Amino acid sequence: MKLATAFKYMNKDIQQVEKQIKRVTKAENTMIQSASNHLLTAGGKRIRPIFVLISSKFGSDNQNKIIDVAVALELIHMASLVHDDVIDHAMVRRGKPTVNKQWDNGTAVYTGDYIFARTLELLKSFDDNRIHSVLSNTIHQLCIGEIEQIRDKFEINQNYFTYFRRIKRKTALLIASSTQMGAIAANVDPSTEKLLKLYGYYIGMSYQIIDDILDFTSTEKELGKPVGSDLLNGHITLPTLFAIEDKKVYHAIQDYFNNKDHPSMNINEVILHIKESDAIERAYQISQKFLEKAFNTVNQLPDIEEKRLLTDIAHYLGERKF
Amino acid sequence: MKLATAFKYMNKDIQQVEKQIKRVTKAENTMIQSASNHLLTAGGKRIRPIFVLISSKFGSDNQNKIIDVAVALELIHMASLVHDDVIDHAMVRRGKPTVNKQWDNGTAVYTGDYIFARTLELLKSFDDNRIHSVLSNTIHQLCIGEIEQIRDKFEINQNYFTYFRRIKRKTALLIASSTQMGAIAANVDPSTEKLLKLYGYYIGMSYQIIDDILDFTSTEKELGKPVGSDLLNGHITLPTLFAIEDKKVYHAIQDYFNNKDHPSMNINEVILHIKESDAIERAYQISQKFLEKAFNTVNQLPDIEEKRLLTDIAHYLGERKF
Repeated sequence: MKLATAFKYMNKDIQQVEKQIKRVTKAENTMIQSASNHLLTAGGKRIRPIFVLISSKFGSDNQNKIIDVAVALELIHMASLVHDDVIDHAMVRRGKPTVNKQWDNGTAVYTGDYIFARTLELLKSFDDNRIHSVLSNTIHQLCIGEIEQIRDKFEINQNYFTYFRRIKRKTALLIASSTQMGAIAANVDPSTEKLLKLYGYYIGMSYQIIDDILDFTSTEKELGKPVGSDLLNGHITLPTLFAIEDKKVYHAIQDYFNNKDHPSMNINEVILHIKESDAIERAYQISQKFLEKAFNTVNQLPDIEEKRLLTDIAHYLGERKF
Repeated sequence: MKLATAFKYMNKDIQQVEKQIKRVTKAENTMIQSASNHLLTAGGKRIRPIFVLISSKFGSDNQNKIIDVAVALELIHMASLVHDDVIDHAMVRRGKPTVNKQWDNGTAVYTGDYIFARTLELLKSFDDNRIHSVLSNTIHQLCIGEIEQIRDKFEINQNYFTYFRRIKRKTALLIASSTQMGAIAANVDPSTEKLLKLYGYYIGMSYQIIDDILDFTSTEKELGKPVGSDLLNGHITLPTLFAIEDKKVYHAIQDYFNNKDHPSMNINEVILHIKESDAIERAYQISQKFLEKAFNTVNQLPDIEEKRLLTDIAHYLGERKF
């Protein structure tokens, strides 16, 4: 469900964001147009735009600029998802065939590139160097996160540090940039901007951990992809890191990674085992720690209506079951 | 061979460009670092940086900015080559294994993204909106060109218009942007800037047609990839467009496109046939027409030393045999 619908928040602004996303991704080339449309209608919570909009309320209004920043962040997110799906040979996302599945890898790679390019065009007239600076640094980190994810794929000997650094780069920084860039675009004072950025970071970390838990505990229908996809694709996430403290689980996964076509143990049984082990609860506890930090950060924000909203969204995202 | 070596031109500036490319693509992640290094040492003529440098001489000096623009254009070119090779499943480029071959598709896609991101970081402090505007539009057109290339792959029923539009987007605009952005960065007057941009465009068109001819007429050693690779990969270029006016050639290629694994005719014989037909000469004549337009444009430029150089480079690129 879209976050704006859940909170009945700024529906008019969000509609403007949707309209602008459609306008920006409009292409004379019919293949790109269809691929972009496909991505757009596949939904998504629009978390990043919502955070840009909310953060901007702590400053002075600068409507058009703020909408454009919100759109840019959603587009960067969309572009990175298309490239991710190529790399992961993903067939479905949010219950719909991926671009690489419906078309091919080439279309997916260049649709991602195209969306990046359109984002640059959208922001080119911005004279605020900090906007460009934060954005380019975030994309830079995002790429490193993605490359690290490839490097660490099917590598069972990872530690917690590797995992946290990876989700920071892959997810948390883009959400932190959303709250920060919303603040910058609305000329929010530096200390509030810092708090908003920090809030985004904590929420992003908690969000990704919850996502990694749901990959085990949710259903195929709710996930829009098979349960345990992460592990099946060789991605070691926090629940797995806890679960492999049990040497039997460690060996079973190692065996699957080494002999993917003919593993001696059924990997679906391992997934089921992790789902029912305390690894899930332990991962959940960590996500709650990040959530608490988000709450503490919100508490220090100036007392406007949106302060309460940030707390509510943190609860909503941090406790979601699907 | 590097263009700067051929012309012994601005060696100091070009060395600075090389140094800056190395600095910008430096990555803490060892996989990206190796992939980038691999790309860098694979060479390339550095045509785009050279054109930025030469164009800038028609204006006032602005050394650092000009070097950064030169680096940005080479990086965009490098990034697009990495993505191209993924899509084409290319194994070798310039005689070296491609990134997707040496590593994998994922590393190649994200290395391309990473280089894009680093380019943005390089230019973020530029306060000249026109630089951003030209660059983002060029990347945008480049992506459309690439997507069109996928759409038109293994499609024999194409016309000359489709071909020219595609090479304009894929090649000519990036070279036109090099001459134009060099001019913008050096505050060249508007009419000279326009001429330089036009020169870049004509050179780019001529250059790509020559490239497409060489794909048939050169040797595997000189090309760094198999002769006839374009046709083998389903890309219809100008020589092929002329050659398929002969219905026998048309049917042979159509047959190969429809039954790639079991064509009834040997495609290498078709390649040999095209190589020895007048299609090559006809394509060459077209490339010469673009070259003449480039010469005419140069003639209208202010009379400085670099004017002669632009003519010499046009000759060199337009008449190259490898």
